[in-house]
Amino acid sequence: MGTLEHSDAIELLGLVAQLEHVAFARLAADSALAPTIEQRLELSRFASAAVERRDRVLARITEIGGDPVAAVRQYDDVLDDFDARTQPGSWWERLLKAYVGYGVADDFCRLAAEGLDAGSRAVVLEVLDDASHAELAVAELDAAGSADGVLTARLALWGRRLVGEALGVVQRLLVQRPALVRLVSVGSSGSANPPTKLFGELTAQHTRRMSRLGLTA
Amino acid sequence: MGTLEHSDAIELLGLVAQLEHVAFARLAADSALAPTIEQRLELSRFASAAVERRDRVLARITEIGGDPVAAVRQYDDVLDDFDARTQPGSWWERLLKAYVGYGVADDFCRLAAEGLDAGSRAVVLEVLDDASHAELAVAELDAAGSADGVLTARLALWGRRLVGEALGVVQRLLVQRPALVRLVSVGSSGSANPPTKLFGELTAQHTRRMSRLGLTA
Repeated sequence: MGTLEHSDAIELLGLVAQLEHVAFARLAADSALAPTIEQRLELSRFASAAVERRDRVLARITEIGGDPVAAVRQYDDVLDDFDARTQPGSWWERLLKAYVGYGVADDFCRLAAEGLDAGSRAVVLEVLDDASHAELAVAELDAAGSADGVLTARLALWGRRLVGEALGVVQRLLVQRPALVRLVSVGSSGSANPPTKLFGELTAQHTRRMSRLGLTA
Repeated sequence: MGTLEHSDAIELLGLVAQLEHVAFARLAADSALAPTIEQRLELSRFASAAVERRDRVLARITEIGGDPVAAVRQYDDVLDDFDARTQPGSWWERLLKAYVGYGVADDFCRLAAEGLDAGSRAVVLEVLDDASHAELAVAELDAAGSADGVLTARLALWGRRLVGEALGVVQRLLVQRPALVRLVSVGSSGSANPPTKLFGELTAQHTRRMSRLGLTA
């Protein structure tokens, strides 16, 4: 593996680690806000699992000779704009934001991981596969939404805003990070226009995700 | 073991679990506020360890036939007054609050654990022994304080306020929870006046803790 491939891998691993760290922070905050003690306990376990996943990614960065702290630090502000533009107005909007936001981020990292060396790819896919917090969001949103048509309509609208902003984050990342474009291009090697294929794929996954909740994407 | 001993044990285990849950929430919030990425990563690991400790205590409650959620829930508000009265004004005050607050709480639970059955006592002592976040607070406060006389004087004052409020929490707990008084009395069986001995012991431990930071208790 050449130096170039190393540094591209470290850049994607840094992003995955940052996203898991953000997931920890968000799940911990969700735990503090959750309406019942059962949810508070469960969300704290999800937060804890995100720390464990993040540290697995950081360990991989160390393994391939990178500086894990520096790799994470470069993505410190990656979701600041997204968060500022998508302040949830209720517990349900908060859950959907996590579900949609993590969903797009995970799908993007999964697609970019196709450009990684086998060892790093295995770590990323394992970590992303392990993100069980989506199940909670689905169960809760499904239970709440099915009983309330107004809520369903509002959440569908909210989901459209979320995915638009999330795709905007991906777009900015690709402009700022040529390494990520290179990695994504490997996964889209059959395509004449990798970014177009990428956004098509992310949108399709989002639509599937919303249907699981009975919401129109 | 009689039903009475079971229910006393469940009451103390519920308190320990709640305190670990609060530790998780506080460490997670500290992680979000910490000045450097290194601290953010480290504090998130401490938060995650608190979840793991809490779940060990909850598992013990289940083992002896209790309802873990109900046991934790009864202490939902245990630190609300303490928190309202001790809003930290800086990162250092926040660190000292955790160090002093956890310190008094841990010492109280350790003393009350002397009244538990051997299995539950082992779990509580193991969990309390494992609370390594104090080391971080000591290292940081020590580094900051030794270079700054004004900060040292302020923190000494803050420490006195914190311990006063913390001992107030213990006092209210003993008034509201006869089970805890019974458990503490076992540990103080040589004493004519168990609560007096308890507060003497808690104060002595606090003084030792403050000296480790070079602060006057």
